[in-house]
Amino acid sequence: MDVGTLAWPLDRAARQRRDHVAIIDGDVQLTWGQVHDRASRLGGGFASMGLVRGDRVAVLAANSGRYLELALALPRFGLVTNALNIRLAPRELEFILDDSGARTLVVDTAHLELGRGLAAACRAVDHLVLLETSGAAPLAAPDGKEIPYEWLLGHEPRAAMELTPETLATISYTGGTTGRPKGVMLSHGNLVENAKHMLATLSFSPHDRYLHAPPMFHAADAMMIFCLTWIGATHVVIPGFDATLVPRIIEEQAITATVLVPTMINMVISGDAVARHDLSSLRLLMYGASPMPEDLRRRAASVFACDWAQLYGMTEASPVVSVLDPENHRRGLAGEEPYATRLRSAGSPAIGVEAEVRRPDGGAAPVGEPGEIWVRGANIMAGYWNRAEETAAALADGWYHSGDMAYADADGYLYVVDRLKDMIITGGENVYSTEVENVLYEHEAVLEAAVVGVPDEKWVERVHAVIVVRPGHAVAADDLVAHCRARLAGYKVPRTVDLRTEALPKSGAGKILKRELRDTYGG
Amino acid sequence: MDVGTLAWPLDRAARQRRDHVAIIDGDVQLTWGQVHDRASRLGGGFASMGLVRGDRVAVLAANSGRYLELALALPRFGLVTNALNIRLAPRELEFILDDSGARTLVVDTAHLELGRGLAAACRAVDHLVLLETSGAAPLAAPDGKEIPYEWLLGHEPRAAMELTPETLATISYTGGTTGRPKGVMLSHGNLVENAKHMLATLSFSPHDRYLHAPPMFHAADAMMIFCLTWIGATHVVIPGFDATLVPRIIEEQAITATVLVPTMINMVISGDAVARHDLSSLRLLMYGASPMPEDLRRRAASVFACDWAQLYGMTEASPVVSVLDPENHRRGLAGEEPYATRLRSAGSPAIGVEAEVRRPDGGAAPVGEPGEIWVRGANIMAGYWNRAEETAAALADGWYHSGDMAYADADGYLYVVDRLKDMIITGGENVYSTEVENVLYEHEAVLEAAVVGVPDEKWVERVHAVIVVRPGHAVAADDLVAHCRARLAGYKVPRTVDLRTEALPKSGAGKILKRELRDTYGG
Repeated sequence: MDVGTLAWPLDRAARQRRDHVAIIDGDVQLTWGQVHDRASRLGGGFASMGLVRGDRVAVLAANSGRYLELALALPRFGLVTNALNIRLAPRELEFILDDSGARTLVVDTAHLELGRGLAAACRAVDHLVLLETSGAAPLAAPDGKEIPYEWLLGHEPRAAMELTPETLATISYTGGTTGRPKGVMLSHGNLVENAKHMLATLSFSPHDRYLHAPPMFHAADAMMIFCLTWIGATHVVIPGFDATLVPRIIEEQAITATVLVPTMINMVISGDAVARHDLSSLRLLMYGASPMPEDLRRRAASVFACDWAQLYGMTEASPVVSVLDPENHRRGLAGEEPYATRLRSAGSPAIGVEAEVRRPDGGAAPVGEPGEIWVRGANIMAGYWNRAEETAAALADGWYHSGDMAYADADGYLYVVDRLKDMIITGGENVYSTEVENVLYEHEAVLEAAVVGVPDEKWVERVHAVIVVRPGHAVAADDLVAHCRARLAGYKVPRTVDLRTEALPKSGAGKILKRELRDTYGG
Repeated sequence: MDVGTLAWPLDRAARQRRDHVAIIDGDVQLTWGQVHDRASRLGGGFASMGLVRGDRVAVLAANSGRYLELALALPRFGLVTNALNIRLAPRELEFILDDSGARTLVVDTAHLELGRGLAAACRAVDHLVLLETSGAAPLAAPDGKEIPYEWLLGHEPRAAMELTPETLATISYTGGTTGRPKGVMLSHGNLVENAKHMLATLSFSPHDRYLHAPPMFHAADAMMIFCLTWIGATHVVIPGFDATLVPRIIEEQAITATVLVPTMINMVISGDAVARHDLSSLRLLMYGASPMPEDLRRRAASVFACDWAQLYGMTEASPVVSVLDPENHRRGLAGEEPYATRLRSAGSPAIGVEAEVRRPDGGAAPVGEPGEIWVRGANIMAGYWNRAEETAAALADGWYHSGDMAYADADGYLYVVDRLKDMIITGGENVYSTEVENVLYEHEAVLEAAVVGVPDEKWVERVHAVIVVRPGHAVAADDLVAHCRARLAGYKVPRTVDLRTEALPKSGAGKILKRELRDTYGG
């Protein structure tokens, strides 16, 4: 068994912490020995289904213990996890399934009907696996296209395949600047190494009880699954983020660590539930996707009196690039310099990761001068699935070109100032402006459309559309919102729309000046 | 700067913890910013001396802050550290210096005369660097062969060289089964990766204050130097282990972590000083070189009421292979199974390291069956310096063949039962029987000689010689001890000698049956 592959963390946990609780999901508790046995039996099931090494298995489901064990099981048998964002619109999901060529789609009950529709529409999908069936394992192979999870579990255990760190483990779709989502290919080695970077950079212990509240289909949670499995800690799973549930579960399950995005933290501390629960078990609250607005940080620190860490990264980096560690938070919140200033940064490179600020010509940008963040390390993706050109552009010169603009201070802390790739981060989700603009342009009343992120108290940034109405047409903001809602994931739909009649500001070359627009809205 | 090279940990510490205390040695305190500056100036000094990439620099000195900063500085400029065991006899040191071809020998005052002798005897050595000179930096280059450290520090700072993880970083000599010491070549990548394995496996924090008590010329301490530098912790250095000094320094310097060998722990808890000092700052006591005898463990646990971890490994593995972690110690000491049984083991593989028990034919040994420990991982040495044949034998099939015999339990814990390579570990130092036997055979009264390790309360194992006296000769045990002392490091000299007249037990092929001899002495 190659220690650089994803079978290793579960094997190690099952050996060393066999009788310790591995996964808690509602009333279900499994030990590491049980999870290992179940993952091995799933291997037998996958083989019976005819799945072979390299096949993609898509998952469309809310968080669950079964989702987590599936994420641990699939890579053991050379299968590639294609975790789908459940918030996407059907036509977006169809595009992804056709692009990844997934042969199997795993769905929970809430997504069963949608899954059936997708399976009918997507040629490659030949099986649906129903995650939430219950009862005894059916003895005979199920007839037809739909396979109960229990039938998979009823097989003889199989040992993990001998794979290498280069073996493809996951394909995760992110929006693209062209408006066409692209599949980020992460290898076993990418995920193993970033888990190691995290373990080395922050302190985790086998006694940690980690809460999976954000969606497992995101790269951050996928990595934390392997990171905490490796040391044999306990995973506590809830279906998804819920501002009332999170404080209750922290108390009931004595949660010690979790990752939330600032929007979720804001919802928790603004809710009623937080005052009713004892949060003192929590020792480490990590947050990601965007730095914490100062006001929110101050309010949150009084509620969560524990260590804080910020994670900065992107799917292409498996995903952690830099970390703003607990000491910076502790001393920064006390007003001590340089820590207080660093709270506005995205931290400094994690142990094992290189990140540098580069000028457009590839030269190093001096301290304080903004440039593009380039990243190098064993955590950097293998490339984009079937996108040779975009892969070559993103991985030029042996570095990943992140598209994020930042400057570094003299201590190597990174301050993100802008995004080359015209992306908005709203409530922890990435939205590519182009994708939303393309949909807006499909509406007959739209002459010009520009989508920008503007500051928002709840979502940190919100999607804002500036529309120039075509002469002779009348349209209401609500019409455009409804038009988008039918075609895009809810979080991509503009929350505010500004209708104009005068042309948008443009460069000499006719390019819409987004920066100028953002400035108008205080962005 | 490649993150897989040894310049990285110091660069990171200097950036992120510039004004934090890096090194404490007596009254001298240096911050990370100062250490970085001094290491950079040393680079200028090395260049002025004419040292070029790949040159070996030998160091013969007790522990000191300067030794530590030298260990951080040399690899930054592609120079190869050849740390010498100060307990070796002159003829042993001469052999090593000739073998490594070191051009420069760094000595402290205590080893100045010895160093002068070695420099005269060894052709390759063209400079002596005097570590402990003091006063202002001399402006002019020193005349002749002896160079004060201050002169090196007086140079303009130089940035670290662009190197790769494959670049050779250290050559450390270990005894050999042939009686001829061999140089273990560790690359930048080997040491960086093992430091990462340690950071991921055990919890360290930037607030740790680590005591360097065992000699820095050992692989374990060399790795801890990089491990703790990477996170910007504080190194506290004392000249060497001293049972009175260690408890005092733990209290005075609020030490939080250290590595000792069982013999040292025994000396500390048996001494007077321990009762006079508050040891409560210590949170992690690591021990290595051999498992802890049960009685010692019980006595020691009442004195050091902190977390315990055992490290098992060897120079060839940079050096950590497996770890018996704090939880196993805590619950094992409380008598809970399987933890209590595991206290007799060498732990389980560290995160990032593979270790398996193999049969002589290379197949996996089943649970409970002793076989040789094979190790794989980014921490495994590049090979033995100028020993192609021994390298090929040790690194066959892509694994390092450790020569240690062990069985694994069902949970993957390794129980070392014997050593293929006929090695004794006494007070934490490795002694190869062959080397001592070779010296004994040089004595005219010795007909047959067998050197074995026998259990010893103070040294865990002690070197014991069984001698068959040549007919017609008379010799006393003391004569043989004196003969060895003149030719070998003190710790290799037999502590007890058994003189016989009858032949030693032999196999059909005439090989002395060491195991049978050891059994006689309860080994």
